[in-house]
Amino acid sequence: MSVTAAQGFTAHGVAAGLKSTGAPDVAVVVNQGPSSAASAVFTSNRCKANPVLWSEKAIQTGSAVAVAINSGGANCYTGAEGFATTHRTAETVAEMLDIGAIDVQVCSTGLIGLLNDREALLSGVRAAVEGQSRDGGHTAATAIMTTDSVAKEAVVQADGFTVGGMAKGAGMLAPALATMLVVITTDADVDSATVDAALRSATARTFDRLDSDGCQSTNDTVLLMASGASGTTPDAATFTDAVTAVCHDLAMQLLADAEGADHEIAIEVVNAATVDDALEVGRSVARSNLFKCAIFGKDPNWGRILASVGTTRATFDPADLDVALNDVWVCRNSGPGESPDSIDLEARAVSVTIDLKSGDQSGTIWTNDLTQAYVHENSAYSS
Amino acid sequence: MSVTAAQGFTAHGVAAGLKSTGAPDVAVVVNQGPSSAASAVFTSNRCKANPVLWSEKAIQTGSAVAVAINSGGANCYTGAEGFATTHRTAETVAEMLDIGAIDVQVCSTGLIGLLNDREALLSGVRAAVEGQSRDGGHTAATAIMTTDSVAKEAVVQADGFTVGGMAKGAGMLAPALATMLVVITTDADVDSATVDAALRSATARTFDRLDSDGCQSTNDTVLLMASGASGTTPDAATFTDAVTAVCHDLAMQLLADAEGADHEIAIEVVNAATVDDALEVGRSVARSNLFKCAIFGKDPNWGRILASVGTTRATFDPADLDVALNDVWVCRNSGPGESPDSIDLEARAVSVTIDLKSGDQSGTIWTNDLTQAYVHENSAYSS
Repeated sequence: MSVTAAQGFTAHGVAAGLKSTGAPDVAVVVNQGPSSAASAVFTSNRCKANPVLWSEKAIQTGSAVAVAINSGGANCYTGAEGFATTHRTAETVAEMLDIGAIDVQVCSTGLIGLLNDREALLSGVRAAVEGQSRDGGHTAATAIMTTDSVAKEAVVQADGFTVGGMAKGAGMLAPALATMLVVITTDADVDSATVDAALRSATARTFDRLDSDGCQSTNDTVLLMASGASGTTPDAATFTDAVTAVCHDLAMQLLADAEGADHEIAIEVVNAATVDDALEVGRSVARSNLFKCAIFGKDPNWGRILASVGTTRATFDPADLDVALNDVWVCRNSGPGESPDSIDLEARAVSVTIDLKSGDQSGTIWTNDLTQAYVHENSAYSS
Repeated sequence: MSVTAAQGFTAHGVAAGLKSTGAPDVAVVVNQGPSSAASAVFTSNRCKANPVLWSEKAIQTGSAVAVAINSGGANCYTGAEGFATTHRTAETVAEMLDIGAIDVQVCSTGLIGLLNDREALLSGVRAAVEGQSRDGGHTAATAIMTTDSVAKEAVVQADGFTVGGMAKGAGMLAPALATMLVVITTDADVDSATVDAALRSATARTFDRLDSDGCQSTNDTVLLMASGASGTTPDAATFTDAVTAVCHDLAMQLLADAEGADHEIAIEVVNAATVDDALEVGRSVARSNLFKCAIFGKDPNWGRILASVGTTRATFDPADLDVALNDVWVCRNSGPGESPDSIDLEARAVSVTIDLKSGDQSGTIWTNDLTQAYVHENSAYSS
């Protein structure tokens, strides 16, 4: 049910013909209120897609009543024509719901540099709004898929309120944000400031720590809309925890469905001087193609981990680092430690632990291995 | 002839048994003088191999008489035992040549985290010093190879003096430095300060702009030794030009031999506000796995280029970027430009031009595509 699990939300997904396969490609999620508090975070890429340019302005009101999402075309680097398509999408939803265009968020995903067929898109938007229902969450989650192999949905039932969400994303997954579109809904009765703080806290600890392939998208959006329909106003910590749990669940689903990947790798950096140090070290390892190839090859090559750690500015003594693979401390004091012979890298889940011995902070970055299937999928994508 | 092309240098390479294949794995290059001015630049990785820890101290004298290099083991993350092996290597050469150990540079390459067999190494060093000759350049260049498919050598004959060099490196090629060992020799009669300035200028414009796979090594060393044997003292600019020419030649040989690569890609960034901006933008594209996969797939996917440009802090207007692939301006003003249909990406050489329209500076980064062969080679390397 995902985005329609919380009270006060309707959704639907339809096939508008944007995808050459004829699969569903347009979704809407509508907040029936009584509240419409909302917040969104967007890609930090400076080359942003048209829907991001629109939505980041529109969300400044702290409110959103609906979101229209299309797959089958990112509407990115498409100039004024592309921006007009985004604007018409918002206007079309607004006219049908008798709200302002500024109350409508717009997201797009798919190939960059190609104009979407505007009439097909608007026709799909109209059909999606007409078909919206309380049980439309799954059809919406399906319509936003691109190379995803499965729809990604999550629900957390908290004390008196519900948080649900859907996500798409399978490649170009890098922090701030991963390539993803995420819509989260809640029936908690919370104001815009609470929604915003909870969303920023949750994404910083989940999606921002996902780095599948180091490539940052132009279209990333995570939207949180609150209907207030439950009548429950949780305290900020409880609300943030529930939103974070949904974000974490969706982030792990994105990781597990990353293009061509054979392994999900959690890189935990412990005893760092600061959380930022831990994350910088984790990201450097997550971006090492050599390390990622080694995991694909089931090779416990800890030297490639240390070589990546050495490229960072974090506080540590280069001669005194410990590294574990699947809890076997193969590197002690920057030299060989326990034998790697007992390490079994057959399972998809791999853990790397790096002890910086420089403080008491920690952080985890999640990544995937680099496989021949990833290269194949991403060398053939647009052809 | 490479490192023995310039007057005053002898060299040799031998098989010491460090490589399981029995291929040559130990080389020496000796400066017979009369001068011994020298300089070296090393990896900026903070986790440095033992030979780098030794050599960066020893070169502070501004002088070097010999360099001993082994392949078959990087002597990195091998602790005090590993450092003692490096020190004994320098002492062994010094004893045979009746010089100080501090006059001997040491380089190692191969797998990280494994101790080299010290006795085998020292025995090889002794054999290499004994066999040194004026025509030993090529055997030395062969003995430093790891996954290189060819020995890499270059010579520039300048007005009254010669610069020659050899290099190894085929993976882990990233700036500052790429994974490489390079020895350059010259018979110009120049002092240490001139040698140092020329080397730093040359590497900043060549090896530092090579980014094959984004992975920075722990062992990189570029050493320049001057014998003064020609009796010619060129002006600084002429000398720097000759050293730069040799470095450029060797850098392009490294690029062409990168592990598994199908394409050599030159990313030129023009009309940048600063050279640093140009290089930052070029590096960001060179590190985009999605872009590199696209080139492997012969897909002129310029959207992935813009998405990488957008991750940088360089000065530009995100709505006004032009991008050319093989001189076809497929992106104008951050939107579709000329049709990419005429672009032929069959040839190994690919050019990307990015116009930032923000100044008059430019810079080029060289990289390779990301192939299934790269993944295969680097997932199977240590097994």
